[in-house]
Amino acid sequence: MIVVKVGGSAGINYDLVCDDIAALVREGNPLILIHGGSHETNVISEKLGKPPRILTSPQGYTSRYTDAETMDIFAMVYAGKMNTRIVERLLKRGINAIGLSGLDGRLLVGPRKTSVRAVENGRQILVRDDYTGKVESVNTALLDLLLGAGYTPVISPPACSTQGEAINVDGDRAAAMIASAIGAKQLIILSNVPGLLRRFPDESTLIPALRYAELEQALDFAEGRMKKKVLGASEAIAGGVEQVIFADARIAQPVRMAAAGKGTVISR
Amino acid sequence: MIVVKVGGSAGINYDLVCDDIAALVREGNPLILIHGGSHETNVISEKLGKPPRILTSPQGYTSRYTDAETMDIFAMVYAGKMNTRIVERLLKRGINAIGLSGLDGRLLVGPRKTSVRAVENGRQILVRDDYTGKVESVNTALLDLLLGAGYTPVISPPACSTQGEAINVDGDRAAAMIASAIGAKQLIILSNVPGLLRRFPDESTLIPALRYAELEQALDFAEGRMKKKVLGASEAIAGGVEQVIFADARIAQPVRMAAAGKGTVISR
Repeated sequence: MIVVKVGGSAGINYDLVCDDIAALVREGNPLILIHGGSHETNVISEKLGKPPRILTSPQGYTSRYTDAETMDIFAMVYAGKMNTRIVERLLKRGINAIGLSGLDGRLLVGPRKTSVRAVENGRQILVRDDYTGKVESVNTALLDLLLGAGYTPVISPPACSTQGEAINVDGDRAAAMIASAIGAKQLIILSNVPGLLRRFPDESTLIPALRYAELEQALDFAEGRMKKKVLGASEAIAGGVEQVIFADARIAQPVRMAAAGKGTVISR
Repeated sequence: MIVVKVGGSAGINYDLVCDDIAALVREGNPLILIHGGSHETNVISEKLGKPPRILTSPQGYTSRYTDAETMDIFAMVYAGKMNTRIVERLLKRGINAIGLSGLDGRLLVGPRKTSVRAVENGRQILVRDDYTGKVESVNTALLDLLLGAGYTPVISPPACSTQGEAINVDGDRAAAMIASAIGAKQLIILSNVPGLLRRFPDESTLIPALRYAELEQALDFAEGRMKKKVLGASEAIAGGVEQVIFADARIAQPVRMAAAGKGTVISR
């Protein structure tokens, strides 16, 4: 089983990603795709007059402030536009894709944070109307049911809170939970950079390989969104995944190149 | 098996609809829900600076002009916001709902119209960049798979063209195809009117019962969007459904009330 996460940043070529995935599935490799949508959510949020607000935790992790109105936009872009268009790309390539959000069949479940601590203008604030959380369990029976019947699941946030609410969860960490839950050997995380860079954005400082024990140190130099990917990698390996590979979504055959080790290979 | 279509017009109370559906499912009635999203699509289209354009066919049927940009908005609202929020409502009520568009697993497939004839300012025009079509086949194996595992499918347009493209299809006619394909005895079509009115919008002119043979005549006085519902009813009954009931989505227990005959009951 291959688990692939493709990010939602600007510059990602979903046609190349879907070309590669379709070929892999046709060759007999069952696959689960998880995708993001952050860039497009920013674009649509601006157009709808609800500009994105990014919260930064005291530890330096960033997340989207997601009140009820933002969740509507988030669901529209992730589960609506992005998911539909990725499923459509795979269908056109002959793959029987099926789109799911984490709410569908309670696929991705976890607690909603009752409050979120953030730093704004140097002061700590507590945000209480935020619909965010963390995936703690995966409905693997649903994935097995669909994979067993020949479907290729295409999964996106939002997830489902333990109370049944739509919650914004980090896609990389959700992918890590999925890969662990189904016992995948490899988790491939594609984005608009070639992997983990020691000095972002200098692509010549790509780190080709890292051990699990070195991940905590990597959090120090990982920039912005890459921090969550490092956290996801750490959680995936702690959950039994053998290799997590950060790789480039902008090139031809991005999944194959990643699986062959092009990017940053993180292993136990 | 109960097949329920709930419209997407203004004024529909989805909480009441989901209360009733959740109770019915808990009582052991398997159910498939199909929903619309036209009003919200109009609202979001306006906000995004792409006002809706409605095409009227020479026969007087109306449909949304759906170019690629409109399809993005359509997918955002139907498969994103509306579907996610309806699934969320059912999850909160303890029902294991699963949201699907017609693309997912090629659930609803039909040909895309290569061109659409419309009347504008008294002249016939031919529209060629429209992504619309008509559902001709339903992936009942996927519905059986999910229902058999205890999930409640929540389905919305877009559908899937024979080439794998996202296409806008009428939700009422899609619901008719689903009801026929799975051999449902009743198809309940809920909207923001109490049923078929002889003189719209005078609700005192509600028609309580109609025979299949009278449907063609009903097309003459059915207003705007009701025309497509009449067409859907006709197709459902031709497809083997025993009763199609047009009923009010704005009241308590709307599904139960409809199933008991409150509304317009159309039968063979």
